[in-house]
Amino acid sequence: MTTLNLGMVGAGRIGQVHAANLAARVPGARLVAIADIAFEAAQRLAGQYNIPHAYDNPEAILDDPAIDAVIVASATDTHPAIIEGAAAAGKHIFCEKPIARSLAEIDGALAAVDKAGVKLQIGFNRRFDANFARVRRAIVDGEIGQPHLLHIISRDPGPPPLSYIRVSGGIFLDMTIHDFDMARFLLGSEVVEVYTSGAVLVDPAIGEAGDIDTALVLLTFANGALGVIDNSRRAVYGYDQRVEVLGSGGAIQTENKYPNAAVISTGDHIRRDLPLHFFLERYADSFALELAQFVEAVVHDRPTPVTGEDGRIPVVMALAAAKSLHEKRPVRLDEIAPA
Amino acid sequence: MTTLNLGMVGAGRIGQVHAANLAARVPGARLVAIADIAFEAAQRLAGQYNIPHAYDNPEAILDDPAIDAVIVASATDTHPAIIEGAAAAGKHIFCEKPIARSLAEIDGALAAVDKAGVKLQIGFNRRFDANFARVRRAIVDGEIGQPHLLHIISRDPGPPPLSYIRVSGGIFLDMTIHDFDMARFLLGSEVVEVYTSGAVLVDPAIGEAGDIDTALVLLTFANGALGVIDNSRRAVYGYDQRVEVLGSGGAIQTENKYPNAAVISTGDHIRRDLPLHFFLERYADSFALELAQFVEAVVHDRPTPVTGEDGRIPVVMALAAAKSLHEKRPVRLDEIAPA
Amino acid sequence: MTTLNLGMVGAGRIGQVHAANLAARVPGARLVAIADIAFEAAQRLAGQYNIPHAYDNPEAILDDPAIDAVIVASATDTHPAIIEGAAAAGKHIFCEKPIARSLAEIDGALAAVDKAGVKLQIGFNRRFDANFARVRRAIVDGEIGQPHLLHIISRDPGPPPLSYIRVSGGIFLDMTIHDFDMARFLLGSEVVEVYTSGAVLVDPAIGEAGDIDTALVLLTFANGALGVIDNSRRAVYGYDQRVEVLGSGGAIQTENKYPNAAVISTGDHIRRDLPLHFFLERYADSFALELAQFVEAVVHDRPTPVTGEDGRIPVVMALAAAKSLHEKRPVRLDEIAPA
Amino acid sequence: MTTLNLGMVGAGRIGQVHAANLAARVPGARLVAIADIAFEAAQRLAGQYNIPHAYDNPEAILDDPAIDAVIVASATDTHPAIIEGAAAAGKHIFCEKPIARSLAEIDGALAAVDKAGVKLQIGFNRRFDANFARVRRAIVDGEIGQPHLLHIISRDPGPPPLSYIRVSGGIFLDMTIHDFDMARFLLGSEVVEVYTSGAVLVDPAIGEAGDIDTALVLLTFANGALGVIDNSRRAVYGYDQRVEVLGSGGAIQTENKYPNAAVISTGDHIRRDLPLHFFLERYADSFALELAQFVEAVVHDRPTPVTGEDGRIPVVMALAAAKSLHEKRPVRLDEIAPA
Repeated sequence: MTTLNLGMVGAGRIGQVHAANLAARVPGARLVAIADIAFEAAQRLAGQYNIPHAYDNPEAILDDPAIDAVIVASATDTHPAIIEGAAAAGKHIFCEKPIARSLAEIDGALAAVDKAGVKLQIGFNRRFDANFARVRRAIVDGEIGQPHLLHIISRDPGPPPLSYIRVSGGIFLDMTIHDFDMARFLLGSEVVEVYTSGAVLVDPAIGEAGDIDTALVLLTFANGALGVIDNSRRAVYGYDQRVEVLGSGGAIQTENKYPNAAVISTGDHIRRDLPLHFFLERYADSFALELAQFVEAVVHDRPTPVTGEDGRIPVVMALAAAKSLHEKRPVRLDEIAPA
Repeated sequence: MTTLNLGMVGAGRIGQVHAANLAARVPGARLVAIADIAFEAAQRLAGQYNIPHAYDNPEAILDDPAIDAVIVASATDTHPAIIEGAAAAGKHIFCEKPIARSLAEIDGALAAVDKAGVKLQIGFNRRFDANFARVRRAIVDGEIGQPHLLHIISRDPGPPPLSYIRVSGGIFLDMTIHDFDMARFLLGSEVVEVYTSGAVLVDPAIGEAGDIDTALVLLTFANGALGVIDNSRRAVYGYDQRVEVLGSGGAIQTENKYPNAAVISTGDHIRRDLPLHFFLERYADSFALELAQFVEAVVHDRPTPVTGEDGRIPVVMALAAAKSLHEKRPVRLDEIAPA
Repeated sequence: MTTLNLGMVGAGRIGQVHAANLAARVPGARLVAIADIAFEAAQRLAGQYNIPHAYDNPEAILDDPAIDAVIVASATDTHPAIIEGAAAAGKHIFCEKPIARSLAEIDGALAAVDKAGVKLQIGFNRRFDANFARVRRAIVDGEIGQPHLLHIISRDPGPPPLSYIRVSGGIFLDMTIHDFDMARFLLGSEVVEVYTSGAVLVDPAIGEAGDIDTALVLLTFANGALGVIDNSRRAVYGYDQRVEVLGSGGAIQTENKYPNAAVISTGDHIRRDLPLHFFLERYADSFALELAQFVEAVVHDRPTPVTGEDGRIPVVMALAAAKSLHEKRPVRLDEIAPA
Repeated sequence: MTTLNLGMVGAGRIGQVHAANLAARVPGARLVAIADIAFEAAQRLAGQYNIPHAYDNPEAILDDPAIDAVIVASATDTHPAIIEGAAAAGKHIFCEKPIARSLAEIDGALAAVDKAGVKLQIGFNRRFDANFARVRRAIVDGEIGQPHLLHIISRDPGPPPLSYIRVSGGIFLDMTIHDFDMARFLLGSEVVEVYTSGAVLVDPAIGEAGDIDTALVLLTFANGALGVIDNSRRAVYGYDQRVEVLGSGGAIQTENKYPNAAVISTGDHIRRDLPLHFFLERYADSFALELAQFVEAVVHDRPTPVTGEDGRIPVVMALAAAKSLHEKRPVRLDEIAPA
């Protein structure tokens, strides 16, 4: 297999990111088909990146024997069926997070993948960000000793539309899920218990929609470490994505990414420009890297760097966090999904 | 009253700091007497800073009509009696934190102060640190809008001796108490509930002594804001004292203080020297400022910047934090001390 | 003209950078032919990026009527002939710096371009770097008032091979030339006089080869501002590329670019990783941007952002800097090339 | 000699700084007399710091056998006579910079000191600043190898009154002199040649007064290193005092000092407060340290850390810099003062 032939389901915002990266930054792979129920979107993307085939249904991709692997970039509720279809067709799968919003669906999809023996990678792209990857490496390499305390700051520049919030499954499944993955990834240890403190401080309408917009989630890790995730739906200065780990031998912390490193001094203050605005800019490189590693894993028959189980556990954590918020008590993950 | 005559009880480490500051950095005041049951320590300090009188008992100070105000820098268990004696003698009082380790003692001491109508200031010196004062000012001036999320990082370079830990009243009364004060001070709002997650990660002997050495304490404020305090008894890189506040209109964060601002680039990395080692170096200026403001408050008959109530509430918070840790549930402050 | 057809002469290091960028990051253009006297290099590049034609001589490109524009990425001594050939063939030209090493050759090439009326852009890619572009914007927008003092720090991680140094034309034509361009670009004013102080401190062999490896070049601008360029052939911590401008209303300075923004604190020091190693990493984005703007300028018939005159003047500055070094006196640019 | 008795001539701005430091931060010394031809200023200072004697003439101090050492903080033109008088009286001397404005006067004063065998320290306080001392230590300890390139940025927040500029001896004797000392101090090597580029960009009236307000001074060191001093009479963001050294094994650079380390993020930018405003704030600690080391040198009969020769050479450099500016050519120091 010299070049991997990929088909993608979903020509929306994240599908466009993947298409651009496949055109230029992912060696050894070729995007040969794009499907979207909004057929015009599929056609437009096909035209833009010289993708040979555009379809209005995912089956056309699943049915094409020339396609080696499928990228699932469609709406979350379509993920399980496409995963199962792709697995049945013997195709490797790259699926955006979350796999699904219910554990039953996730377990069904993962069982299908297991049975088919195909590879599955979940789109937790932030693991591939240079800053967070550096933190992980520091911990793996022992640069800071045994981890004791973890901070994850994860704030959006502004809340999504209320229409989206209503169907998103809540802040924990929609936003914190990336941070739940990051917590496990960085520390290399599972979370056993969460305690959530939440509030509606950004926009009362979010509260009326049944969600919160501000949260602190305490994490207790199997290795004894403690952690806290800080989420806000709005940081007026822009996308705020930092982590910090205190270990027995040192600490590591990361800064945001900025469009430039210029510092301006005036008679009023010393200032710099705001950080990169949102995830498309901030994580541009990580989207390319995750696909490149997926392709490498398939081509060289190696495990993918973000497995199905890696996609499942953050959903368990999100459910536990929501339960903790509502019941005002710490919740063990094995209450949600017995180990 | 042109110059305020001060007597100090306690010639230990913090007493020496106060004596040095009074000699040079606190205008309008003169330290005229020092008492310590370790008489030699009192004599030594008197010799070093030209303090006219040295005693081996606090009563000698309380009985001297020429003394306007008393600095209480002796062991915590002696505080209530000295406060009550000073109040009875009509002397103003500057007392190190905590006032006492039990609410009953604190309430007794504060009642005596109230009855006597003397001024009382508690030694929460960190409020006078340039960084934290700047954060407070940003919030008061509306530079970051309404506060939503607070982080306090407060880590010591190393744990105190086990002998001290055993009598300290626990990490919350000994170490976190400064952070409890800081939380109230910065946000200008009371904490109504705490939830504590704690661990013994630094030294098992601390656990055997009945204490913890690593903690995350979640705070819920009356104004709706959320906060988290991060405590560790050991950060190998030194004293780590930072805060960060996200507000509706912006955010403010502070860095540690360093002995110099030099950055060295070598073939291995870009580096700088470690932060100032511990509280005597880091908070040197704040110790001088708190005394200067105490003297000003007394001389100009104004309220002190850190009142008796400011000394009492962090103790309530510490007791609530300990209760939360032991009962693994959020604890409201009014469970400890009905409002 | 919907898509611009480009031919490139030179399949070496910089040619490879351009080929990769044209494959992915330069909308509206297609690289249709590559020529190199090392024919295998041309073939390899053609294979890697699906370039339809590979040749062993530049004439094949100049003779192809389907080619709209030529990228000149071959050895400096071949530039004038290729520019003149391309101009005669009515093709637009993107040429790497320097245009040539003698003013006579440069003037000949520029005259040919003028006569043919084709567009010419010189590869001073650093103008497109986010940091330096931000400095230029600050000056244009008046963020720092009138410029008074300019510092350019420009240090390589290590010297090139001696064999290269011997034919490079010297440090001013090879290395400082980028800084000469940057000085004019940032301040928007011409340099009228230079004074050079130079030394051999990095490697005596460089001195034996007739060159220097360390230099400070003072600049006097037509608008009265003063500037200094700091060059070293070796900074052991890596590629050091910073500028700083003091103006009447403020100052702006830029930092290097780093692979990540992680900061590690240990018991020894606070540290971060070294900056991006050399120009291919540091200026990766600027190489893509300069080509994109060249393509835009041609397609929309607008002036190119780096003109032939922009390519000529830094050579005049380099010759003046060398003369100043040898004669130990300030040298006006009009001594080299009468205005 | 348990406590050193000091007399000070000059109760102006810098005299007040010394008096405050002697009251609190210089162990082992006592300021017993203050003289100023403005007698009221002397009296005021005496009252403020409990200085036993105030005089309206320096002779009263020189004549007092109980005084061990004299601090010369009066106007520059009075320095030589007071130094000579103090030396004749066998008193050690701490003298503000510059010793005098002419080499003849300086040489006379230094000869008197030599003959008397008393100790002399010159007030180049910046050597004692934590940042610059750290740079010196890095070089002495070999942290950055052999120095190759030095940058000194030294900018005032605003120009002094024109009346002062007219009598100051010019920017090189008044302002750059500190940087000339810093250059020698940091590199531990003498400057052999200077080349000056200067301009009037801040205020035309400074030019009309015969001075410049903006300068770049190139330095060539005996050890082969090159350096540049950047001076401006006005940086609107405040006092800018930084140095940077590139060495064969690394580099070191220093930042300014700030009143706090708080960083504020808003919807407009990331900002911090301006640096400490001017030299009294920025160098507060260094003024105390220089006196403490002077006292130690006298008490323990050790060489002072800033000798008479250290006071003389920067004047030679200033004269050479002025000559270079006027003659538009590099000037060797041995043209001014044969070695």
